[in-house]
Amino acid sequence: MNSEKPILYNYFRSSSSWRVRIALELKKIEYEYKPINLIKEGGEQFTEEYTKINPKQEVPALKIDGQLLVQSLPIIEYLDETRPDGVQLIPKDPIKRVKARIIAEIINSGIQPYQNANVIKKIAQETQSEEKKMEWIKFYLTKGFRAIESALVESSGKYCVGDEITIADLCLVPQVYSAFRFNIDLTDFPNVRRVYAELEKVPEFIKAHAHRQIDTPSELREN
Amino acid sequence: MNSEKPILYNYFRSSSSWRVRIALELKKIEYEYKPINLIKEGGEQFTEEYTKINPKQEVPALKIDGQLLVQSLPIIEYLDETRPDGVQLIPKDPIKRVKARIIAEIINSGIQPYQNANVIKKIAQETQSEEKKMEWIKFYLTKGFRAIESALVESSGKYCVGDEITIADLCLVPQVYSAFRFNIDLTDFPNVRRVYAELEKVPEFIKAHAHRQIDTPSELREN
Repeated sequence: MNSEKPILYNYFRSSSSWRVRIALELKKIEYEYKPINLIKEGGEQFTEEYTKINPKQEVPALKIDGQLLVQSLPIIEYLDETRPDGVQLIPKDPIKRVKARIIAEIINSGIQPYQNANVIKKIAQETQSEEKKMEWIKFYLTKGFRAIESALVESSGKYCVGDEITIADLCLVPQVYSAFRFNIDLTDFPNVRRVYAELEKVPEFIKAHAHRQIDTPSELREN
Repeated sequence: MNSEKPILYNYFRSSSSWRVRIALELKKIEYEYKPINLIKEGGEQFTEEYTKINPKQEVPALKIDGQLLVQSLPIIEYLDETRPDGVQLIPKDPIKRVKARIIAEIINSGIQPYQNANVIKKIAQETQSEEKKMEWIKFYLTKGFRAIESALVESSGKYCVGDEITIADLCLVPQVYSAFRFNIDLTDFPNVRRVYAELEKVPEFIKAHAHRQIDTPSELREN
């Protein structure tokens, strides 16, 4: 293991960045926060400087143990496997493990790809319609939350899978934040709302929140 | 462990179904194949009968050990953890593990969501243009293959990560098949082509191929 402080290239509001921030907090790993503004001047992820660091031109990217890791779920699995301290993010029990990973993946591959900034921009361009863009977002978020809710009915306790925090919870919180941002109605998803309300109280989740990062714009900043 | 034969609800051409078929072959697990036609009459995944089995109305779904599992990557991780026989799909070495999972995830969350049948249908409807639909597919597939190629430059040996088959390879093969289907030019991705050519020779990959399933239409069928 390399002893240098890990560097997280990320953006305050990127939901996959946010998942990794929660993981780093829960695993008690100190890290350096390097903001990459995905919006400013067409996106800092496309600059020559950042492309040298991460040719995939995306966040999050975590420099750790001499590696540059991308993709939030593999990063979280890696942190959990190589760092015994803090919360166990992937449960030990095989059935709980798979249930936690399924919920994480419903969000990661089943919702997030349809609402990320680049895709939404593309949809707005293709359809030339703000209304159609919002319909697109609403369609995929509502469909996704229906799948999460049906999983939570079966697996949730205090958190997404039983009463311990897992990788699923790290994905749920930024996704619910996006739902609020896009005015998605969560009335029909009581388990989602209940688990989210629990997670909002956890100190590590508070610290990793989009509204409390060094690149959070002042109008959104909370203490 | 339950001793009943697992049931795989799947569709011959669904790339995430196909990944699970390869995993089942490599882990030497006998299973029952239940075809769910995603195209016929608006999609058999939406029938009342299938919705009772899988409320998420998607494939693949694997009934195993008394559970109904969804999401291909968590299913593959579960099979690897609970079945010691056959190929180890997630490498033991932490760095190789994370590299294999990153490539799998680039495909699973970075490409496949943009080319699945439902999304493509939606794009065609929204834009009312066959040309724009094909542009969309080409854009996301080419972007995705660029990311895979840059990962393979660093990690590949005979296969995606070194010289052993991993979860990354299970995702690569159906993705390359989709690229051929949509006439995506792979000239700039020599490592993708090289690894794919190796994987095509592996008996378990041959058996799991989309053109060799019980629901493969006769005009596509190969022996």
